[in-house]
Amino acid sequence: MADIDASAGAVAGEGTRVAGDPGNGSRLVPPDAPPAYHRLLERLGQVSDLRATTSLLHWDEEVNMPPGGAAARAEQKATLSRLAHQAFTAPEVGEWLDELAPWAAQLDPESDAAALLRVTRREYDRSRRVPPDLVAELARASSQGYQAWVEARAQRRFAPFAPALARLIELRRQMADALGYAEERYDALLEEHEPGMRTRQVRELFARLKAGLLPLVQAIAERQDRVRDDFLRGDFPEADQWALTLEALRAIGFDFRRGRQDRSIHPFTAGLSPGDVRLTTRVDPTVFGPALFSSLHEGGHGLYEQGLPTAWQRTPLADGASSAVHESQSRLWENVIGRSREFWIFFFPKVQARFPHQLAGVDAEAMYRAVNRSRPSLIRVDADEVTYNLHIMLRFELELALLDGDLPVDELPAAWREKTRAYLGLEPADDGEGVLQDIHWSWGGFGYFPSYALGNLIALQLWEAALRDEPALPEQIARGDLGGVLRWMRAHVHRHGARYEPLELVRRATGSELGEEAFLRYVRRKYGELYGL
Amino acid sequence: MADIDASAGAVAGEGTRVAGDPGNGSRLVPPDAPPAYHRLLERLGQVSDLRATTSLLHWDEEVNMPPGGAAARAEQKATLSRLAHQAFTAPEVGEWLDELAPWAAQLDPESDAAALLRVTRREYDRSRRVPPDLVAELARASSQGYQAWVEARAQRRFAPFAPALARLIELRRQMADALGYAEERYDALLEEHEPGMRTRQVRELFARLKAGLLPLVQAIAERQDRVRDDFLRGDFPEADQWALTLEALRAIGFDFRRGRQDRSIHPFTAGLSPGDVRLTTRVDPTVFGPALFSSLHEGGHGLYEQGLPTAWQRTPLADGASSAVHESQSRLWENVIGRSREFWIFFFPKVQARFPHQLAGVDAEAMYRAVNRSRPSLIRVDADEVTYNLHIMLRFELELALLDGDLPVDELPAAWREKTRAYLGLEPADDGEGVLQDIHWSWGGFGYFPSYALGNLIALQLWEAALRDEPALPEQIARGDLGGVLRWMRAHVHRHGARYEPLELVRRATGSELGEEAFLRYVRRKYGELYGL
Repeated sequence: MADIDASAGAVAGEGTRVAGDPGNGSRLVPPDAPPAYHRLLERLGQVSDLRATTSLLHWDEEVNMPPGGAAARAEQKATLSRLAHQAFTAPEVGEWLDELAPWAAQLDPESDAAALLRVTRREYDRSRRVPPDLVAELARASSQGYQAWVEARAQRRFAPFAPALARLIELRRQMADALGYAEERYDALLEEHEPGMRTRQVRELFARLKAGLLPLVQAIAERQDRVRDDFLRGDFPEADQWALTLEALRAIGFDFRRGRQDRSIHPFTAGLSPGDVRLTTRVDPTVFGPALFSSLHEGGHGLYEQGLPTAWQRTPLADGASSAVHESQSRLWENVIGRSREFWIFFFPKVQARFPHQLAGVDAEAMYRAVNRSRPSLIRVDADEVTYNLHIMLRFELELALLDGDLPVDELPAAWREKTRAYLGLEPADDGEGVLQDIHWSWGGFGYFPSYALGNLIALQLWEAALRDEPALPEQIARGDLGGVLRWMRAHVHRHGARYEPLELVRRATGSELGEEAFLRYVRRKYGELYGL
Repeated sequence: MADIDASAGAVAGEGTRVAGDPGNGSRLVPPDAPPAYHRLLERLGQVSDLRATTSLLHWDEEVNMPPGGAAARAEQKATLSRLAHQAFTAPEVGEWLDELAPWAAQLDPESDAAALLRVTRREYDRSRRVPPDLVAELARASSQGYQAWVEARAQRRFAPFAPALARLIELRRQMADALGYAEERYDALLEEHEPGMRTRQVRELFARLKAGLLPLVQAIAERQDRVRDDFLRGDFPEADQWALTLEALRAIGFDFRRGRQDRSIHPFTAGLSPGDVRLTTRVDPTVFGPALFSSLHEGGHGLYEQGLPTAWQRTPLADGASSAVHESQSRLWENVIGRSREFWIFFFPKVQARFPHQLAGVDAEAMYRAVNRSRPSLIRVDADEVTYNLHIMLRFELELALLDGDLPVDELPAAWREKTRAYLGLEPADDGEGVLQDIHWSWGGFGYFPSYALGNLIALQLWEAALRDEPALPEQIARGDLGGVLRWMRAHVHRHGARYEPLELVRRATGSELGEEAFLRYVRRKYGELYGL
């Protein structure tokens, strides 16, 4: 739901290790590493420092910066991004990579050094294909697009945003063509978030997922009276909710010696290093739930960042495998764990102790049911587990059509309405609660939406695999012991950092290909029971 | 007292302007500026962004960073400092400056462009004279020195620190020789903080100041019973003290839309830009006073930073004139204003409203007397207005003798004790409350101490000049209207940024040369009255 700002390279933290964190076993620098390898590592370290600092500039802007700092901050971020890009794409980096190719060829492909060179080569080649003029033009168009979007949103009318969006689509097409692609244009944009994945795969996966979801959504919509959640609205003072988010984060294993949580308008996670991971959330004192689940969501991102191998610090390996894999971790803790019956057996007494009057007469089971109430809604970020992926598919289909030129920009609002009707059975009153609701397109951010849904699928595949290995996990959760879940994720996901492409990571961690079945099994069982289907 | 971390270049803020802030009148870019001038400005902007970001890294480390972030933060700071240094000292910068010299020669010397080129040339030439290897060696020696100092302090014995200090002195000598100097070695280090000032001038000034202070200190020491301050110790809850620091900062005109205040172990100010100025302070709930005066001190630094011309953003002109001039602003608000009778007529009711029981029976006059109690003490940072400068002179004389080789390192503790006896009539029980009390020498920071005392002198010269222009200022202060003081400082100090060297700034702002007379007049009158001398 929230953005993850974890592109920063990572540096050793000094926190505790959960078994399975491999950090120390890593051999990033083989004894016979040539000088060019050392030079490359030094440069990657600088780039990582610049990126981590850029993350801090962003975090600080959202959390601390006084309004008067805005103009200077924009300059600072631009300068640091430019320097990081220059340092990474400098010709000597390519020369070092070329020089190292024969040496790399005789390394064990499973070795850390081989993985580092592979990932660096991929990122370097991609970065070098980006024409600097196009980057500058996109930056301008993004900024104009954002302003036009803000204006359009204020009017709740798409028209004022249309020309800027058309321009952004055109520039993104040019970018895709400059980057190159194997099968279709969208591949080039998808590659930025999901290395090695193809649009075709996403399209096929989503088709099967949609076919599975639509009947379920419809069945639930017809039985809305089965689950009540009215007691979640009321007077839930901010300080108590905040304290509960901290309790929940501690319970899932977030290490506050290597991280912190603050307030911001839009929740996000900034992973400055595995030793310095910053979550943000927001609290609405009139409703219980959103703050806690937002904390668990960001906490999931944060656990991934804290679990990246310390030995890979300041290299591109100390990063998540992809946006979808990152989302799998946030959605796992937010939904699969945080909205499980077992979690509420453990956690409900803590909540009730803080809100004895507000939750009088409510028990753990009632709470479990309430936080899982499902109903089609117009706004993606408010959507429940069942309907959420439909919001994503709608966006994926539309941005694909826009990019391919199959959908003219001025027909976008109508197409949005039509798909909203078809998938969710709802009709947006205006563009504000329709096509203008997300910020992503305002800066030309095409290619990211699929990662949200893919993350949901991966979360359930990982969870099924973890349960096969450790059938006692649910029982442990009900007792408040969430360490087993974290240990499994550390061992099968976190410890690999960016070593594997996402499809390969899923294969290795779960023994099967990325697919929709685990997710569909999960929602059918869980919501079938909740809604008596 | 606290360090000012305001080296960052400055960028436009959007806050209110006090009359006298010239920002917009500035013409930094003349219509006929050659391309090299534009290139230079662009580079200076990048350097400024990197320095401001380094300030943020430092601020964040003290205020927010979880312990696990320390290792990564050290790398980030090192990388950004190195990049800023490289960008500023790159050969092309010298070429641009050379190319611009004929054009600069025909500019009005009072013009902004001429001032910018003058300041940039001075800093560039100085930076280029620093041998990179020596910088690296000093960085290592500083780090080792700091560790040895921490260890020695724990033992309260100088000996474990001695070898590291000897090494630092040797390296600083080499640095001074590399930088060059007009009259004596110490000049080269002094120049870093007080451009254009000579050791000879400081020595002469301090000799006269000392001659004036010693009899006064002795007379006060004999009349300790004249001023009581026992009611300042007690139960002063942190939240109330914190609220009072904010009230005081608002009263002096600190703009919270362009700044903030946070807690840190050592108070400091980070000026990221005139629109983003961050103060820190600390609160001891067992005593009233230190937190408030520390806030006023940092607030004085902060007002200077917020008052730097916005039109000079991202250039070396958007900086304080020198460390001493910066200290003049902090000491002005902390002492000359904050410890004035008029301030307490205005502010005491606010304090008493928060602490009615603790301050029962106390009135504004008693409070004024209490916060001005003077008595010789061993620790510089606890010293009052009268004795403070003696602590500085002692350090100046000793570091001068160390650098010149007149004082062997192992004789330093004895020399310290002897001077402490001579100037303050006290005997340190051990090196912990003697020669090891300050952090500065632990990293080889010689040449900075004089700025503290010079700042005290400048503060009083400025205050006398302000009073000549605006005799009603004290009356305004007593009414809680501190805007007149700020307006005068904006017009005569802040608006000039780093345009003038400190001696020139003092001359222009006060009509007289830097001297000790104003300060001596001030302490004689104020403390003469307080102690019935």
